[in-house]
Amino acid sequence: MPNIVVLPGDGIGPEIVDEAIKVLKAADAKFGLDLNYEQDLLGGAAIDAHGVPLADSTLDKCRKADAILMGSVGGPKWDAIEAAKRPEKGLLKLRYELGLYANLRPAILYPQLADASSLKPEIVAGLDILIVRELTGGIYFGEPRGIRVLENGEKQGFNTYVYAEHEIERIARTAFEMAQKRGKKVCSVDKANVLEATVLWREVMERIAPEYPDVELSHMYVDNAAMQLVRAPKQFDVVVTGNMFGDILSDTAAMLTGSIGMLPSASLNQSGAGLYEPVHGSAPDIAGQGIANPLATILSASMMLRYSLNQSAAADAIEAAVGKVLDKGLRTADIYTEGFEKVSCQAMGDAVVAAL
Amino acid sequence: MPNIVVLPGDGIGPEIVDEAIKVLKAADAKFGLDLNYEQDLLGGAAIDAHGVPLADSTLDKCRKADAILMGSVGGPKWDAIEAAKRPEKGLLKLRYELGLYANLRPAILYPQLADASSLKPEIVAGLDILIVRELTGGIYFGEPRGIRVLENGEKQGFNTYVYAEHEIERIARTAFEMAQKRGKKVCSVDKANVLEATVLWREVMERIAPEYPDVELSHMYVDNAAMQLVRAPKQFDVVVTGNMFGDILSDTAAMLTGSIGMLPSASLNQSGAGLYEPVHGSAPDIAGQGIANPLATILSASMMLRYSLNQSAAADAIEAAVGKVLDKGLRTADIYTEGFEKVSCQAMGDAVVAAL
Ligand SMILES: CC(C)[C@H](C(=O)O)[C@@H](O)C(=O)O
Ligand SMILES: CC(C)[C@H](C(=O)O)[C@@H](O)C(=O)O
Repeated sequence: MPNIVVLPGDGIGPEIVDEAIKVLKAADAKFGLDLNYEQDLLGGAAIDAHGVPLADSTLDKCRKADAILMGSVGGPKWDAIEAAKRPEKGLLKLRYELGLYANLRPAILYPQLADASSLKPEIVAGLDILIVRELTGGIYFGEPRGIRVLENGEKQGFNTYVYAEHEIERIARTAFEMAQKRGKKVCSVDKANVLEATVLWREVMERIAPEYPDVELSHMYVDNAAMQLVRAPKQFDVVVTGNMFGDILSDTAAMLTGSIGMLPSASLNQSGAGLYEPVHGSAPDIAGQGIANPLATILSASMMLRYSLNQSAAADAIEAAVGKVLDKGLRTADIYTEGFEKVSCQAMGDAVVAAL
Repeated sequence: MPNIVVLPGDGIGPEIVDEAIKVLKAADAKFGLDLNYEQDLLGGAAIDAHGVPLADSTLDKCRKADAILMGSVGGPKWDAIEAAKRPEKGLLKLRYELGLYANLRPAILYPQLADASSLKPEIVAGLDILIVRELTGGIYFGEPRGIRVLENGEKQGFNTYVYAEHEIERIARTAFEMAQKRGKKVCSVDKANVLEATVLWREVMERIAPEYPDVELSHMYVDNAAMQLVRAPKQFDVVVTGNMFGDILSDTAAMLTGSIGMLPSASLNQSGAGLYEPVHGSAPDIAGQGIANPLATILSASMMLRYSLNQSAAADAIEAAVGKVLDKGLRTADIYTEGFEKVSCQAMGDAVVAAL
């Protein structure tokens, strides 16, 4: 009986996670998934209850889980808290402690939502790229880090960008394996003309590549990659990069679609357990109004079935159901345009269940 | 007699710089600028001649100059050279040694070229933002850095992201001063929810802001900034950020216009001397064919007149002349679309001279 820890988090998190669970239960009834759910707190909600963004008991539950389904964390309520104890730190700790090094962020343009992009239709029509972001290393976790006072009395802030070979190797393998199931191209993004940490990155990518002779490896500097994503994003299949560049480029790629309310993500560790969350944030401005888009979370649940629970038939069915509700013209406020039917968060979840 | 060091560099560098000098000479004849030029080598050209990408004698000349006009550096010919000695390192050393900490990168959409953007016209029409990038600090120059072998025998690459208060203060002032002459808004971009170096960055921005009460300061995380540039770039006026984020975001902003062959940049130091270069690279694939777009370099020369030589009338005249040749329908290959007149690099330079 697979064990799912559910972490709704803050802002719109609880509303969208509710709909995802509703859809999972419907899929369970149909495919006999036999899932067991345990709900817990993360981020601001955990700070309010326990004074920390990730309680040890929550972390323990997550360690034992087969998968974690998350909503989103953060909000203005916790903005004044010192950096080290903020909602985001709970998520970062969870990623790190569970070794969730492989972050998969697909950027897909749904043909039904082609108009939502700020880019010209011919540039983004049919867009389907996968950003593979290293998630437990690099400058996010490098030591030493902090703010110190120099001899002359002025403050200095510092962080360390660091990657060891084994960290690069394993994310390289994830990228190559993903590419084998897709367009068979990996573009590795670095700044090897400036940063030594990424010189090693490029070296290791080159060393691993021959193990995947059916996949073509190319390299791009991060500044050029940012440009190429805007200029001609369809040139990419799988993009693999470090934690910080991945944060920036995956959001750029997501925004190309114009509908980040649609985009799921998976963060996997060596053993196949994973954390699944929408790419978008906690949107505190619309929280509690019942107008959030639950589809990114529903699609994250589908990724969970595929990657951690080995239930690809159920995953396919959920994805097909999402396609159907879009075809039917249902739209939450964030993806609404004239001529379509504007629906609430809950109505969208119900519609996906009905389409299943 | 102001002294200009001219560094054509590699690839299309020499062709485009030639046209810029031609335009400067025409402006000189009209406005009595009395400029003196001294040409020298940088990047691959310097490697070929001296074995290093920036010779000491060149650096000395640059130190004494009132301004430096540069083309571009790098190319496949020097790609196999070890990282520490590559063409780009000459440029990085020049920036560092001359203390050129303030990099100004305007992203302007010329109305005549509105179609060139990959974004929808309504998203980018009238776009005029200025990226102010810190250029001599951050992870580009932080120590320690390198690749070491760990006790277990595996390699580890590392870099240091570091900013001291005075470095942040002075780039903050540049951004606020620029905003005072423009739309009176500064958006400071950081990753203060993760990186301590940028927690200090945000703190210092807040501390300096009250000195510029007519300018509104806001903050944005770098991942969100990358998204917002794609979603709604016109919300920005001046964007100020560190060296690495600035590298990425200034290229994103440039590409929004669809015509990076048009975009100049300035890199200034405390004393007002500066390095002026186009935002685009050395385009080795079209070098020597006479088809490169010289306008970004011509506009860089105009920034040079404005910022280092205090000749704003001449700068205005050059910018107006560029507008006129675009109005006349002249286009180099990179910005050519049907119905316009395709011209060579040289013909474009001649046309700007004629329009002056
Ligand atoms: C919330 C934040 C710490 C996080 C990150 O930077 O990784 C988010 O932006 C993301 O991309 O998942
Ligand atoms: C050539 C390279 C070192 C340089 C940089 O990264 O600063 C370039 O990309 C730029 O933006 O001027």
